Amino acid sequence: MKVLTEQINHTLLFKDLGIDTNQEFVVFMPSSCHICKSEGFQALTRLSVSLNRSTIVATLNIISSDLLKEGEISLSKSAMQKLKVKDTDLLRVSPVDALNSMAHVKEKLNGNPLNGCQYNEIIMDIATRKYSNIFLSSFVAACSGDNVNMEEIYFLTQAMIKVGNKLQWENEIIADNECISGLHGNRISIIVVSIIASLGITIPKISSKAITSPAGIANTMQVLTNVNLSLAQMYKVVEKENGCIAWGGAMKLCPADNNILKVKRALGVDSEGLMIASILAKKAAAGITHCVIDIPIVSAAKVQTIRDSISLALRLKEVADYIGLNVEPICFNEVQPLGFGIGPSLEARDVLSVLQNNPDAPKDLRKRAISIATEIVRLTWNIDNQPAEDLVVKKIDSGEAFSKLISICIAQGGFHEPVQAKYNKTILSAGTGIISEIDHQIMARIARLAGAPDDVEAGIDLKIQLRECIDKCQPLFTIHANSPEQLNYAYEYYKQIENKTIKLNYE
Amino acid sequence: MKVLTEQINHTLLFKDLGIDTNQEFVVFMPSSCHICKSEGFQALTRLSVSLNRSTIVATLNIISSDLLKEGEISLSKSAMQKLKVKDTDLLRVSPVDALNSMAHVKEKLNGNPLNGCQYNEIIMDIATRKYSNIFLSSFVAACSGDNVNMEEIYFLTQAMIKVGNKLQWENEIIADNECISGLHGNRISIIVVSIIASLGITIPKISSKAITSPAGIANTMQVLTNVNLSLAQMYKVVEKENGCIAWGGAMKLCPADNNILKVKRALGVDSEGLMIASILAKKAAAGITHCVIDIPIVSAAKVQTIRDSISLALRLKEVADYIGLNVEPICFNEVQPLGFGIGPSLEARDVLSVLQNNPDAPKDLRKRAISIATEIVRLTWNIDNQPAEDLVVKKIDSGEAFSKLISICIAQGGFHEPVQAKYNKTILSAGTGIISEIDHQIMARIARLAGAPDDVEAGIDLKIQLRECIDKCQPLFTIHANSPEQLNYAYEYYKQIENKTIKLNYE
Repeated sequence: MKVLTEQINHTLLFKDLGIDTNQEFVVFMPSSCHICKSEGFQALTRLSVSLNRSTIVATLNIISSDLLKEGEISLSKSAMQKLKVKDTDLLRVSPVDALNSMAHVKEKLNGNPLNGCQYNEIIMDIATRKYSNIFLSSFVAACSGDNVNMEEIYFLTQAMIKVGNKLQWENEIIADNECISGLHGNRISIIVVSIIASLGITIPKISSKAITSPAGIANTMQVLTNVNLSLAQMYKVVEKENGCIAWGGAMKLCPADNNILKVKRALGVDSEGLMIASILAKKAAAGITHCVIDIPIVSAAKVQTIRDSISLALRLKEVADYIGLNVEPICFNEVQPLGFGIGPSLEARDVLSVLQNNPDAPKDLRKRAISIATEIVRLTWNIDNQPAEDLVVKKIDSGEAFSKLISICIAQGGFHEPVQAKYNKTILSAGTGIISEIDHQIMARIARLAGAPDDVEAGIDLKIQLRECIDKCQPLFTIHANSPEQLNYAYEYYKQIENKTIKLNYE
Repeated sequence: MKVLTEQINHTLLFKDLGIDTNQEFVVFMPSSCHICKSEGFQALTRLSVSLNRSTIVATLNIISSDLLKEGEISLSKSAMQKLKVKDTDLLRVSPVDALNSMAHVKEKLNGNPLNGCQYNEIIMDIATRKYSNIFLSSFVAACSGDNVNMEEIYFLTQAMIKVGNKLQWENEIIADNECISGLHGNRISIIVVSIIASLGITIPKISSKAITSPAGIANTMQVLTNVNLSLAQMYKVVEKENGCIAWGGAMKLCPADNNILKVKRALGVDSEGLMIASILAKKAAAGITHCVIDIPIVSAAKVQTIRDSISLALRLKEVADYIGLNVEPICFNEVQPLGFGIGPSLEARDVLSVLQNNPDAPKDLRKRAISIATEIVRLTWNIDNQPAEDLVVKKIDSGEAFSKLISICIAQGGFHEPVQAKYNKTILSAGTGIISEIDHQIMARIARLAGAPDDVEAGIDLKIQLRECIDKCQPLFTIHANSPEQLNYAYEYYKQIENKTIKLNYE
């Protein structure tokens, strides 16, 4: 297709319909629109939409009811925000020239590796939202499986770092940890940050909120303190306390990454290249120099086999070396959730319990946090395992790590104790036997149905552990919720799949 | 991800918002919806939506304004039609298990060829609208360029034929022609059908309406007669007259093809495999046995180089042989539009003019129609070129082909003469010289801006031909429109790019 550079500018009256299409920019026009007819625009056509001097590229959807009249136009939420448009503004629309960088995506689909400039162009167009979902999908498809070679992963990582903000630190060593599965990261990371910061190592944790899980690190930390820090506030907290746990949503590190992730998740396509680039680019953009990456091996987690996790670990390390990041990947074989709580408040309670050395604190969570903190100390200070572990354990046992968490919370805006949900219901064992399986996915879904993470107090409190012998009528777990309806809702779901949730081997 | 087979059914009240998202099924739910919150549904999540015993799979969009209240739900037009839903119906929604056939798409993305069963599953899921646009995009991406081998094209073609209706004919030979570029097909095909049917060869032309061009075959034929034939009506017309030119929109031949085409067009990705499968599957589903395929070589058409067209011709023929279809591909080097008219009525006028042997009928159009009709005769009757051409020319010269067209029109519902648009404006040459280029794309856009194809009388009437010597102020072309605004609109666009539309080499 020949590209016409001269376009007619059509003016239309904006009307807010309040439609949220996630991050994709969508423009809505009525089927009666004379412009659509004469220009041959149809649903999915890419249009340039301008207000004053701002322009976005959006995908067209046609409205055939009377929501929009001829001469009117609307935009999806994200597009409205980007253009800063309000009712009765006049928008100009015109057809869009083909995207240059889509030619690179096609080249990649044809099996050719791309160079650094090509990845830069693609990632820049994605970061500036020029890719519609179907364009993003073709890019994710092109990078699926192991279609991206090591050099390309390096280019991709560099390109992702380039398009966003980059944090600057005065210290030479900036540590972090990352849990790939997202299953336990929220619980462990807060403990790890407390230990590492109490050792005097800088560890600015930039975290995310839950999308499909019952709690992200930012959700759990939000129970204890404020996590919506500006860049200036975050620098101040870290300068004072060596560490922080802040929400990264507004920091614009690696803006292309979120757009890719959204489509990758919806598509259900794995891409080792995109995964590695995404993890490492975010760390590099945050100014991290030393990072321990926890790769769990569980059936429900992202890395399903030992072979896959070792291959991922090796490649992560290789690309990290390229971009000058000290990375230590460690693989754990996971069989059950760490700690007792699932849901922001209940997980925050577990975190406090471990740091306070409560006798009934979850031992598995303490053990894992110690392992990861030890790796960070070993990596940053270049010392042997045992002395590193001794230092870490001492910081927990002495209460110094706990004090550090409190100080960080105060620096972020004040410390709050987690509170209990208003309603709860405890599930009792129907039989006697040994717990042979606890299904992570089902437990997470029950917690969400009970209200987590929006209701921070909602969730599940496990009363048993894997391989534990239990008697009939012994408590298995308690569901917490803030309304009787939600409690019942979660319980009804559990009742449907009772025998799949927690499996017993009868004696 | 583990798939949960037990799902909760949530009931929500339907409200029509009248949003047309083209063929993709989209479900709209308010951001306040307790189900979205508890289930963790977000924009792009795939949901199963049911009414009574009908179920569709749709992509979620979130509405954050008051268009929808908590407890309400809406659907895109296509999804509404599929479920036959009306205001205040109660719909049930639940999460959707992962699509089996997406595993095959991932396998293909990883470079592995797929087998027949795998293509059958994919195409069945696409035909039943289980693929969202991003799934479709990943499939198109997987098949892009020459990623699909010959055996796979065969599987793909068979799979496409399988999922739709298949027409049955009593005669042994059922002829057709196909023009790949779509640039001239509308003009030629009506002439070819008239000639071939007058020779006693069965030629049931199933045609489409314009999407991005100023006229499709069905648009042009609609000027002369009714094209919305039921299957029964079409069989009757063909039995009586040997030929027809009907609109295929409602016949459900190859239903997967339209969905794929829509995303392929929006993505701008070429796929030789999908193109070949699409053409041949439609012919096979229509019961065609002998088909001449016209592959034009023009800068603006789909096949850009001679090498590409020869490669395409060879592959088309090979796959056609596999599925038992006699195909003769012919490549033409196109440099300008055939005939004078662009737009349904003006093109219909050219068609009548050629068949009526008017002295001022476009000679290029007559010549091309004769070439293609001759190829069909040669292919179906297995005779030499010269006797075949003699037969064809005789049918035009004697007026028999014209009579046949009138008979077909009468059988389809009555013959109507094309009428002129209400307004017109003639563009005069600004200089003296030889016409060195006429830009197809620009001419087509001017015709659309003037109102074609919805206003059948609108369009362009060319007054000159390529390589013609012209004087200053000699007419170049006339724009036809049904309102002064549209006429002006098209004219204003032309004025912007005057010197690119028709190029003169000055003497």
